[in-house]
Amino acid sequence: MTTERLGESPIAIVNEGSVGIVETKFFAFAQPPGEFVLENGSKLGPIKIAYETYGRLNKNRDNVILIEHALTASAHAAGRHSHSDDNPGWWDSMVGPGRAFDSDKYYIICSNFLGSCYGTTGPSSLNPKTNKPYGYSFPVITIRDMVGVQKRLVDHLGINSILCIAGGSMGGMQAIEWALLWPEFVKSVILIASGAWSSPQSIAIHKVGIQAIKDDPNFSDGHYYGKQSPDKGLAIARMIGHITYLNDKMLWEKFGRRSDNIQDMKSSFKYRFEVEKYLQYQGKKFVGRFDANSYIYIMRAIDMYDASEGRTNLDESFNRLKIIKALVISFTSDWLFPSYQSKELVSALRANNINTSYKEIKSQYGHDSFLLKYKQLTPPIRRHLNKL
Amino acid sequence: MTTERLGESPIAIVNEGSVGIVETKFFAFAQPPGEFVLENGSKLGPIKIAYETYGRLNKNRDNVILIEHALTASAHAAGRHSHSDDNPGWWDSMVGPGRAFDSDKYYIICSNFLGSCYGTTGPSSLNPKTNKPYGYSFPVITIRDMVGVQKRLVDHLGINSILCIAGGSMGGMQAIEWALLWPEFVKSVILIASGAWSSPQSIAIHKVGIQAIKDDPNFSDGHYYGKQSPDKGLAIARMIGHITYLNDKMLWEKFGRRSDNIQDMKSSFKYRFEVEKYLQYQGKKFVGRFDANSYIYIMRAIDMYDASEGRTNLDESFNRLKIIKALVISFTSDWLFPSYQSKELVSALRANNINTSYKEIKSQYGHDSFLLKYKQLTPPIRRHLNKL
Repeated sequence: MTTERLGESPIAIVNEGSVGIVETKFFAFAQPPGEFVLENGSKLGPIKIAYETYGRLNKNRDNVILIEHALTASAHAAGRHSHSDDNPGWWDSMVGPGRAFDSDKYYIICSNFLGSCYGTTGPSSLNPKTNKPYGYSFPVITIRDMVGVQKRLVDHLGINSILCIAGGSMGGMQAIEWALLWPEFVKSVILIASGAWSSPQSIAIHKVGIQAIKDDPNFSDGHYYGKQSPDKGLAIARMIGHITYLNDKMLWEKFGRRSDNIQDMKSSFKYRFEVEKYLQYQGKKFVGRFDANSYIYIMRAIDMYDASEGRTNLDESFNRLKIIKALVISFTSDWLFPSYQSKELVSALRANNINTSYKEIKSQYGHDSFLLKYKQLTPPIRRHLNKL
Repeated sequence: MTTERLGESPIAIVNEGSVGIVETKFFAFAQPPGEFVLENGSKLGPIKIAYETYGRLNKNRDNVILIEHALTASAHAAGRHSHSDDNPGWWDSMVGPGRAFDSDKYYIICSNFLGSCYGTTGPSSLNPKTNKPYGYSFPVITIRDMVGVQKRLVDHLGINSILCIAGGSMGGMQAIEWALLWPEFVKSVILIASGAWSSPQSIAIHKVGIQAIKDDPNFSDGHYYGKQSPDKGLAIARMIGHITYLNDKMLWEKFGRRSDNIQDMKSSFKYRFEVEKYLQYQGKKFVGRFDANSYIYIMRAIDMYDASEGRTNLDESFNRLKIIKALVISFTSDWLFPSYQSKELVSALRANNINTSYKEIKSQYGHDSFLLKYKQLTPPIRRHLNKL
């Protein structure tokens, strides 16, 4: 059965078919002088990457699925870290024996991307040159850098063929970039609630969040580690972001206009609507688990991503792809990555004669649907994988 | 011809048929001990109200149109304050000789609402009891209080019959509340891009803005007058608000993903997208013209408004209305007050056998359309008024 926890880490909890107890592993590389060269030319190292794997690599090493996570998730896609762990991985309902990404069949890898704060090197990591956290001296990173780092992990694991790269939201951007950079490597992609780029509206919303963090006096130009962190700014950013993950209709159903006593509200600002309490709770909870600098760096990487960059258009860009099959899924109520953005992907994939299935799933949960609608996601994903 | 200045005070500028030079007038009332009683029971006084009038009151005193403004506008709906004034009133394209609200035929009144900072008493006004600005000691106000104050002005002007009350956005809420409170007084309403209440999504977005203002260290619990004002918080609030006035498609057309050199952006956060520059400019410009406390008080009044309050539903609430005609207009791209909210109004009006016309205007400008689409607004408004 399912418990849908709509929140900052919405998870559809399913008890049958879990991968069980898992652990996060780490791989370190790019020790100076062999530092990793970023897209902007600057060098970074050493780099540590956090990852989890589910299932077993087969003899032919050709059953690999790469799962790409979104903004504030982690390498912990499935299972639990201990028997007493109440929080399964962020896509637990989708990854496990018999699940959409079947760990009995596939060797599934999920790694935390560069710039995050969940084990992989990011702004909160120690800069070995100063022995202090990088903070705002961390170089600007891109989606390309994220998958570049992940490629090093894949190489390290002795893998040279990926059956499928799947991702929701900015996870889809990473999947696209992988397939563009190493066409020979990637056999198929699954792109969920994603797009070839962010819309200007999305960039605008990110801007407000970034500005709120930077305006927090505790931000201290990004060098707040060991001091008070810019919690208020980060909470504002999260509250704005959170609104975009949900949907007007869903908010009507979940909260409507319910509030404290309306007469009390007319006398004092201390009384609130339910939706406000929810949002404040989400903001507050988030600052306890995420780093403000990481939030800025990642939002910026999303803003800048453009799958057509350097080409005339997306059709021409996708001409580089060698995938044999693609599955694109969007959700009716998603206004952060609306269906038209998925349709743009479908159109460019098909323009290049790539066998592409597209499914628009009816959902009231907005962008968060990709984390919640596992029952609707499972059949098309299973079909896609079975045909590879 | 038209210049559409999409911005924090979008105005469609039309040169023919202006009301010409106008002046803002003031009416003061509620001198202690005869203070004005607010909806929450607290007393306020004295109250000053800023207003403008266009056209002439006829002998029968039955050609009065009341125009209700939205969040950050003022009593200055039409004309210019001097020959060198470059900024006509906020609805200048709609009010004037031969325009939708024809000042050759009607006596048109627009007043600044209670709580604002454009001449009518609000949080930045002097509290006569302390001789300091009210700040956050200003009482919580409601849409009902706003129209209650306006009613005193109307009484003062010797008017006891209003042909039409017209308003866009929260101006529509004021028009509804007027017609509910003084049914015998109001013959018709025009409700544009409005609703019987705010959606929880809208409340959530307001919440983020309010929180950003309150979190600004310069806010000082609302007592910042004479000191540094919470400009950063107010700019954040405005930026968020501004996004909701526009529209995804329009942002694609206006800005797309245009930016500074993309390679530079990958090296430094100082480079930006055009949409970010625009938004920051709007935020900065706004803090020079608006008071942060007013913004909070007004947003809160909008959040709390519910035209069905105290009744079982909107149909029953509208049973009090005695208007003979209503015109409801929405815009296809408006996601702050989407068409479904206008349709709710239409449904409740018609359920009470009120002759109601509804028009959904195709527009790319989002919520701001009510300030810009004067060419499309004029014919239905003219028809509505001609039939009264």
